[in-house]
Amino acid sequence: MTDLSAEMRTLAKAAREAARALLTAATQQKNAALEYAIQELNKQRPAIEAANAEDIARGKEKGLAAPMLDRLRLDARVIERLSAGVQQVIELPDPVGQEISRSVRPNGLLLRRVRVPIGAILIIFESRPNVTVEAASLCLKSGNACILRGGSEAISSNRALAKVLRGALEKAGLPAAAISVVETTDRAALNELLKLEGLIDLVIPRGGESLIRMVAENSRIPTIKHYKGICHVYVDEDADLELAKLITVNSKLQRVSVCNAAETLLVNRKVAQRFLPEMAKLLVEKNCELRVCLETQKILSGAGVSGPTIKAADEKTFDNEYLDRIISVRVVDSLEAAADHIEKHGSRHTETIITRDPERGHRFQLMVDSACVFVNASTRLNDGFEFGLGAEIGISTDKLHARGPMGLEELTTYKWLGDGAGQLRT
Amino acid sequence: MTDLSAEMRTLAKAAREAARALLTAATQQKNAALEYAIQELNKQRPAIEAANAEDIARGKEKGLAAPMLDRLRLDARVIERLSAGVQQVIELPDPVGQEISRSVRPNGLLLRRVRVPIGAILIIFESRPNVTVEAASLCLKSGNACILRGGSEAISSNRALAKVLRGALEKAGLPAAAISVVETTDRAALNELLKLEGLIDLVIPRGGESLIRMVAENSRIPTIKHYKGICHVYVDEDADLELAKLITVNSKLQRVSVCNAAETLLVNRKVAQRFLPEMAKLLVEKNCELRVCLETQKILSGAGVSGPTIKAADEKTFDNEYLDRIISVRVVDSLEAAADHIEKHGSRHTETIITRDPERGHRFQLMVDSACVFVNASTRLNDGFEFGLGAEIGISTDKLHARGPMGLEELTTYKWLGDGAGQLRT
Repeated sequence: MTDLSAEMRTLAKAAREAARALLTAATQQKNAALEYAIQELNKQRPAIEAANAEDIARGKEKGLAAPMLDRLRLDARVIERLSAGVQQVIELPDPVGQEISRSVRPNGLLLRRVRVPIGAILIIFESRPNVTVEAASLCLKSGNACILRGGSEAISSNRALAKVLRGALEKAGLPAAAISVVETTDRAALNELLKLEGLIDLVIPRGGESLIRMVAENSRIPTIKHYKGICHVYVDEDADLELAKLITVNSKLQRVSVCNAAETLLVNRKVAQRFLPEMAKLLVEKNCELRVCLETQKILSGAGVSGPTIKAADEKTFDNEYLDRIISVRVVDSLEAAADHIEKHGSRHTETIITRDPERGHRFQLMVDSACVFVNASTRLNDGFEFGLGAEIGISTDKLHARGPMGLEELTTYKWLGDGAGQLRT
Repeated sequence: MTDLSAEMRTLAKAAREAARALLTAATQQKNAALEYAIQELNKQRPAIEAANAEDIARGKEKGLAAPMLDRLRLDARVIERLSAGVQQVIELPDPVGQEISRSVRPNGLLLRRVRVPIGAILIIFESRPNVTVEAASLCLKSGNACILRGGSEAISSNRALAKVLRGALEKAGLPAAAISVVETTDRAALNELLKLEGLIDLVIPRGGESLIRMVAENSRIPTIKHYKGICHVYVDEDADLELAKLITVNSKLQRVSVCNAAETLLVNRKVAQRFLPEMAKLLVEKNCELRVCLETQKILSGAGVSGPTIKAADEKTFDNEYLDRIISVRVVDSLEAAADHIEKHGSRHTETIITRDPERGHRFQLMVDSACVFVNASTRLNDGFEFGLGAEIGISTDKLHARGPMGLEELTTYKWLGDGAGQLRT
């Protein structure tokens, strides 16, 4: 065993031990730790800012782009927002101990299914150091120990935040190891952690596709992936076309850098001629580039709509997650063809249909195999806060365990409890 | 791409397509296919028995032990039981479309979480060909396509059963590819299937530990494991010792070859002297061998209880899943020490505590991180039928998605459906 491998095993063992201690921690005690965290975030702000300044300086040296540096920055405003986030988690109901089902079996056994923590969770993320606080507070509230592996650019900030959080745990009489930050930026450390299936119960990778793919391929531990979002707006044959414009603009442009922003607009042939020219003009006006199929191109040029930001799609266009002011546009023959396109090119994240016919809306919802399928609503609404879950740890594109926004409940599993008086199997 | 790899990809693609078709299949249509399956099982019995005779003959040639040959056998009685099992699945409620939650968001969006099929499921199992019919009918009822990979000993029987099932699907207007049997016994085929994470949504390995470990290490697809059961009976300091004897005997001996049979008896020091001599005598009487810790040995020899079937435990004793008339016995200092022992040696399957104090029972249930924790009841009760789930596909020892008995509901995932009237993100 190498030193690194031994070090990671020690880290994971400590997390597993802490997870056991959390099994019996009361809500009050977990909330107390979160209260202390808010106090310490405030008290230790100078230390956090100094650590963050190191990261920023290192980032500048490495030539990180301005938006990246922006995402790294922990200033007074960001730290205040972090505290507000922790306060929200305090106010959310504790999922641990909630009964999912209860029955008395014919033999008199009282049988309950009760939510319990998952155990030790490894969360892998990139750059933004605020994820450290957000993820740690959600894990703690749901009774899980967490091991946080942030980006190497934010290592000093993450260390400083971990110190705050671990101090708060100890003040509340909980083991500091319930929240750990991987102190090394060595990529091999991650590989070591991904092997520890007896100690770590779940891996949640958040970030770029290559990171997630690497984790999925190397992990022996169950993983809940938060892959990219290639989200679709489908304008059906009987759509209210004014509504379709509003929803397309909102889905695409309300915030372009997020996974629930739309990337592709599918338009039923029957309304393409009436819909596409106005829609295209509106998008171009709003500085959105279009990558359009041949048929869309014909319709647009026939209607005299053209310009440098309307480009021909190529065969890879419809697999793009732009996260930018660009949209792919395609005419389809039918609702079924739209569903086929989404099956082939989508990422099972979020889709929406614009239709006046509830039956067709329902059919689309049945046929499309995505975490969230809307009728006449913006794809941007797929979000933990919008859904009333409170804070979310991310949006799962996996089908197992948790699908769509993952809040506190999704950070728990369940256990069967049977209370008897001598029941035997006969 | 090798031929085998191409062949497995074709198989998985067909399953994925069939899974899409099942998304819109009505309960009635799925039940009709199951009705036809019962009819065909009856009609094609001669063909099934002939195929099974081939397997039996091949098994005898290979020198399979008598119990193995027994498990292989598909005679009239077994086939009738299979039909009865399919009939039960027909009568179970269809989980697909069930609402898990429903709310109207402040913006008027109707938000529902609805159960949907998982998709294409690969089930890997050993020898017993009846699993083919059981697993396929559960998958079909829950709207999933399945790829079944049984043991090579049962290949002819499995092929014959697949023919019956696929015929039934077609008669009901459903794609035959909704149920496939891997036709080759080449082990490499399994490795190819485990790579197809875009096509297969879930892998359920059932069988020996080495098989499950192989799958867990090689799969890029989410897996729900059904590992061994090292189940514990813990006799607490205030236990009703008569009850403790009944529950120990039932947990250990009611049926020894199954995963929810107890393998280890833990006894609180405070009652060890009073409890162990009588318990040991009873177990010996019932032809159960004991592997006992030093302290138990002292107590037993002090009480004059000895014999050739009471042996000293070694350091590996407590990690054994005997599936036989053997039990490990250990004295522990406290409830906490029992929980520690279970954390170290258990398989997170099923445990039970015998206690008169509900508070201590509850504490044990909190502390022990297993799928099912009983108070004053036999470990043998952890079972889909006992829990009222109807048929089960197995008992999951994983924590994610499904824990404990996996019935129809556990073969589904969910999808978020949002019905709006133009809701946007602001």
